[in-house]
Amino acid sequence: MTLQMLDELRHRGEDYCWGRNGVISLLEESPAHCLKVMISKTMQGSASGKIVELCRVAHVPYVFTSMRALDSMLDGENHQGVAAMLTQSELLSLESAMGLLPPPPEPALVVMLDHIQDPHNLGAIIRSSEAASASFIALPRRRGSLPTGTVVKTSAGASLRFPLASVGNVANAVRDIQDGGLWAVGLDAEAPGTIYDTPLPKRCLLVVGSEGSGLGRTTQKACDETLRIPIRGGTGSLNASIALSITMFEWSRINL
Amino acid sequence: MTLQMLDELRHRGEDYCWGRNGVISLLEESPAHCLKVMISKTMQGSASGKIVELCRVAHVPYVFTSMRALDSMLDGENHQGVAAMLTQSELLSLESAMGLLPPPPEPALVVMLDHIQDPHNLGAIIRSSEAASASFIALPRRRGSLPTGTVVKTSAGASLRFPLASVGNVANAVRDIQDGGLWAVGLDAEAPGTIYDTPLPKRCLLVVGSEGSGLGRTTQKACDETLRIPIRGGTGSLNASIALSITMFEWSRINL
Repeated sequence: MTLQMLDELRHRGEDYCWGRNGVISLLEESPAHCLKVMISKTMQGSASGKIVELCRVAHVPYVFTSMRALDSMLDGENHQGVAAMLTQSELLSLESAMGLLPPPPEPALVVMLDHIQDPHNLGAIIRSSEAASASFIALPRRRGSLPTGTVVKTSAGASLRFPLASVGNVANAVRDIQDGGLWAVGLDAEAPGTIYDTPLPKRCLLVVGSEGSGLGRTTQKACDETLRIPIRGGTGSLNASIALSITMFEWSRINL
Repeated sequence: MTLQMLDELRHRGEDYCWGRNGVISLLEESPAHCLKVMISKTMQGSASGKIVELCRVAHVPYVFTSMRALDSMLDGENHQGVAAMLTQSELLSLESAMGLLPPPPEPALVVMLDHIQDPHNLGAIIRSSEAASASFIALPRRRGSLPTGTVVKTSAGASLRFPLASVGNVANAVRDIQDGGLWAVGLDAEAPGTIYDTPLPKRCLLVVGSEGSGLGRTTQKACDETLRIPIRGGTGSLNASIALSITMFEWSRINL
């Protein structure tokens, strides 16, 4: 499933960002990540004019092309007549990323993703992590290059500026971050305690697993504790990006 | 953009649910919504056996077919060798839905969606609403039939059992729900106060707008107050389903 999904993304053009708002945000916030902008000749005046102006200001090359060429390049994505070709983002080492933490006793939040592969989830997580004042996200390096176009779009551009660290073994990385002074909380729907029972620690690593199978056993063992979000109804779990976001904002409510 | 998205869904087969976990959950929890199950002949033994057994118990017809036939029917979705054909869900009238509210002074939560059209967002919102103990979701009736396959899948099946009410004009519906004794809180990134400043009311309607343009002006005016989630960083907003979920769980933390 994962490989198929990544292949599909690759096929759809993983080095592009598309849509008017997406490209405008990119040019305003991260023009250095933008290699080239392609604009449909039939795009309406004001949006087209704004994009051209932003390209000029940021010295980003732009070309006019046909809707058909954009359709073909982005394979059915709803590009609204504009797309940008992106540079590849670099992933940090865990050591470099740990250097980004505010010094104690300041509050600090780090997110570790154990097997999150859905690009919509990843994009939403990056966006929420930035909004909740997390310092960085760590994720296993066995995935394709980041960010893909879908991740950039779902993160509303945050994936182009928010620090991402690549780690090898997730459980080992949890221990390294604990050694750096953070308390590791694993999110687990089966945990006895909830995130509201005791205040989330001031210097906190949140570890979240895949939707289907949750936290891996060795990852879970490496955590200092596991907590759940108290939920009702038949589904018994939340979308992974939503569960993590609820927990991050509970952390920021208490600690910031 | 919306019509194109709905067309795309329709093309992909909006009356299907696919994937092993999705079909198994459907058969376990909502077999009455399942008209027929199609299983790939090449599907591995244990999952296939479990699905056949669930079909037998629930008296749902099943057929064996080829991967190619499933591929073609679902147009590239990752079906994992199994799909179910769904009945159409019925949308409630607002009047009927209001009858589902627990009587005062019990806590009660209702969600109103103003222009949420992305099926991933809608599915995630339905799933979170059930998990946060909301009574129902109201949404404008100018969309296609619900639930689509993507909504069913993203909601982890919750869309097949969670009450959805169809309304005409959103601002009028907000006033009708206020007349039923609920306090209407609009989520708005520009609001002066945050959801943490004062406790969210015990009997509460949460109103959320589209990602791009937020709440419509008349909808915003109809609300008793607007509140925001305090966020940091460059993006300036959260994904709509995440913002709503954070607010719903803050409501449930205080009121349940």
